[in-house]
Amino acid sequence: MIFAKNTDEVSAMLSAGYRGRQVLAVADVNTAAFVPRGVETLVMPCGEEHKNIESVEQIWDFLHAHEATRDTVLLCTGGGTVTDTGGFAAATYKRGIDYLNIPTTLLAMVDASTGGKTGFNRNGVKNEIGCFKQPAETVICTALLNTLPREEILSGFAEMMKHALVADKREYVRLLAMLEDGSLQHTESAEFADAVKRSIAIKERIAGADPEDRGIRKTLNFGHTAGHALEAAAISKGRVLRHGYAVMQGMVAELYLSALKEGMPHEILQQMSSVMREYYGRAECGCNDMKELLRLMRSDKKNKTAGETNFTLLADAGKPLTDRHAGEKETEEALEYLFSI
Amino acid sequence: MIFAKNTDEVSAMLSAGYRGRQVLAVADVNTAAFVPRGVETLVMPCGEEHKNIESVEQIWDFLHAHEATRDTVLLCTGGGTVTDTGGFAAATYKRGIDYLNIPTTLLAMVDASTGGKTGFNRNGVKNEIGCFKQPAETVICTALLNTLPREEILSGFAEMMKHALVADKREYVRLLAMLEDGSLQHTESAEFADAVKRSIAIKERIAGADPEDRGIRKTLNFGHTAGHALEAAAISKGRVLRHGYAVMQGMVAELYLSALKEGMPHEILQQMSSVMREYYGRAECGCNDMKELLRLMRSDKKNKTAGETNFTLLADAGKPLTDRHAGEKETEEALEYLFSI
Repeated sequence: MIFAKNTDEVSAMLSAGYRGRQVLAVADVNTAAFVPRGVETLVMPCGEEHKNIESVEQIWDFLHAHEATRDTVLLCTGGGTVTDTGGFAAATYKRGIDYLNIPTTLLAMVDASTGGKTGFNRNGVKNEIGCFKQPAETVICTALLNTLPREEILSGFAEMMKHALVADKREYVRLLAMLEDGSLQHTESAEFADAVKRSIAIKERIAGADPEDRGIRKTLNFGHTAGHALEAAAISKGRVLRHGYAVMQGMVAELYLSALKEGMPHEILQQMSSVMREYYGRAECGCNDMKELLRLMRSDKKNKTAGETNFTLLADAGKPLTDRHAGEKETEEALEYLFSI
Repeated sequence: MIFAKNTDEVSAMLSAGYRGRQVLAVADVNTAAFVPRGVETLVMPCGEEHKNIESVEQIWDFLHAHEATRDTVLLCTGGGTVTDTGGFAAATYKRGIDYLNIPTTLLAMVDASTGGKTGFNRNGVKNEIGCFKQPAETVICTALLNTLPREEILSGFAEMMKHALVADKREYVRLLAMLEDGSLQHTESAEFADAVKRSIAIKERIAGADPEDRGIRKTLNFGHTAGHALEAAAISKGRVLRHGYAVMQGMVAELYLSALKEGMPHEILQQMSSVMREYYGRAECGCNDMKELLRLMRSDKKNKTAGETNFTLLADAGKPLTDRHAGEKETEEALEYLFSI
């Protein structure tokens, strides 16, 4: 992980090439201008709906067309769609070439670009196909965030809150304060950069201890069983629901279950419900069909046994509980609570 | 690795399920009957030309349709097309589920089904896309071979000769003797089963020491730089060239280079040229365009630097030399020798 102060620093870093090796790049329409001159670049459309096998095939064929070898490095710069599909294409081209991530959204910085999860959506399931491969390097530059719309910052901030909730109560309190004091409007500040660094450190510590998602890494799935179902429902209805917004909604539903089943203090549910209402708005995925949402949750990757839904819940902020189960009725109740606030 | 004496033993092993986990199967038209009752099976068409992304997508969607979870085990039974595409689909479905291999061809037994290389062809390049994932288990039953046509046995036997040539001179002499005494007509014999076991042991030892193909495993690519180019040329012309036949031809070309550049005894080149002529027939890939064959060699996965062709050559039987280079002229000379015999 390299932290860069500004975009000039990033450009300088890349224009020198990467250790004398061929560099090819994949970027989205917003980030293509950012790739150093002379680096052949595949420009992909933005958005979750393009996180599919067709995009991966485009990248494979782009690598082939430029005679990429096992020594080639693929630079992926953009949001999570670019880093996830680019990472997967790199992980599987000639059975694996190196890739670099330069995330340009807050969400990709704190989530997709670290930890080595790559992949794409299929059959209406988020990241149904993928593999684990660590990027050779990730460059983080929060100065890139200052042109992003507020919704994009909030989307990434939801994952930062998740990291705090599963790992560090003090950090959770800090982030609540940042929301209230307007810090999110100053992404160029040192304070904001430090919060991003702390968030990535939590992610790296947990993912690094369990790269293949068999134990402690499951804590990072907090908010994601319900969140992914809401997101998949939105995609199937052709609606835009940002990943971080879906995670925020998923966390509220799962905090409800945590309070109900694990004795988590109600205060946390109330705080996060307020955060959602005030900053993220109401839960609207375009699907109020409970049966459909429950079915989507059952097809989540985390479920080992068909027909049962696996959650990560909390006993308290900083105290995650993995491999918890909730019945259909309780889960429906949690979703009803979510839709009511 | 489990060795089974006969097909009853294999069926009994599988009808008990796999450690209480859901089993789904992928098989080709010749091997589907072999899957235990009650196991949902996707039947795929046979042949190298189906080793492509469409087959992989079919397997992904089959897993999805049967609500496969991370705990599901995919049984792959058939030739290399089934074990390679099935292994890749398993390696990438939900970022990786377990798979079992029951190879039904000699080639798949000694080559594709062990060592953890999975993948498929793209852009006319053999295994251009793939990843490394060891099968949870491989079951070897040479009794399955007795209905195979002679060409299929010879195809697998070429890889057995390769294993001997790169690792064990005594084994090479043994295999030459087996060819001459007609042992290949008795695949049900204990002698044949033992030769298969020894061949797999060589492959496992070398692949196990270097699972990701960075060092010693490259020795297993002997015969494959030229062989893959011949195979890719044949595919592009719509001709059938069995992998083992292509490897036999590739070995002869690369033995020529070994004698020319590395001082390998000419006797080995003569012996293998005779073996090819007598048992495998003339080299006919449908492409006599040297420029095209040289281009195909350059796009081989092993090449680190674009424009240069990497070979594994021999100083002698059992003495491989990796990362060797040959110029265009020498390579053309080797191909001309190959086409002349």
